[in-house]
Amino acid sequence: MTRQIDHIGIAVNDLEQALEFWDRQLGIRCAHIEELPERGVRVAMLPVGDTRIELLAPLGDKSEIAAALAKRGPGLHHLCLRSDDVDADLTSLAAAGVRLIDERGRPGAGGCRVGFVHPKGSGGVLLELSQPEPR
Amino acid sequence: MTRQIDHIGIAVNDLEQALEFWDRQLGIRCAHIEELPERGVRVAMLPVGDTRIELLAPLGDKSEIAAALAKRGPGLHHLCLRSDDVDADLTSLAAAGVRLIDERGRPGAGGCRVGFVHPKGSGGVLLELSQPEPR
Repeated sequence: MTRQIDHIGIAVNDLEQALEFWDRQLGIRCAHIEELPERGVRVAMLPVGDTRIELLAPLGDKSEIAAALAKRGPGLHHLCLRSDDVDADLTSLAAAGVRLIDERGRPGAGGCRVGFVHPKGSGGVLLELSQPEPR
Repeated sequence: MTRQIDHIGIAVNDLEQALEFWDRQLGIRCAHIEELPERGVRVAMLPVGDTRIELLAPLGDKSEIAAALAKRGPGLHHLCLRSDDVDADLTSLAAAGVRLIDERGRPGAGGCRVGFVHPKGSGGVLLELSQPEPR
């Protein structure tokens, strides 16, 4: 089903402070920063090897990231696996009895098609599947 | 300092149940399983792309993983970055004022030299640096 980790999502309170650590102190360079007001999040993407670290900071206090920060504090938030076919993978996981957040894929950032497995279905890990936009 | 994620550590209650999900349902194949009684942990390593997922299950109830499971439940536990020189990296982070768990590297599994950054120094992420055994 998957052969690559697309990214590792980390919830942060303050994006500039997080970049001071990940980019300037650890040397994992930030490739771009994006604001997604409809999801209430500012995102920094830091490529490392064949995967990426995704730093997620809240825009306002109503977003899912603001809720995660309030509940668990900053830190590792989710894991995203690259998928060739998100809908087929979600169907196959549902057939295996795995609890899902999304029964079918939906549009994600950057033209991807994404779907989430429920943490109760994946041993406490919030797991995203992401299918890149067809070229 | 680093150009690769060595592994992503996931705390699990039951290793066989976790492998049922990660290996058999998601297709990320387990390469080996190791028991480390001195650390109170059973470890399964699942290579994916140029990194690995490390599933950590407690052996007994006295280990750090047992404590993490009791405190936060199963799920994402730590992130490990490959390092060419753990001691130099720890020294440089300490000089930048980053709070550490290990001031110097110490022997880790498989002949690696490892050191941990304190979650308070890395925005809530338990961060391991790991330097492979010289060949």
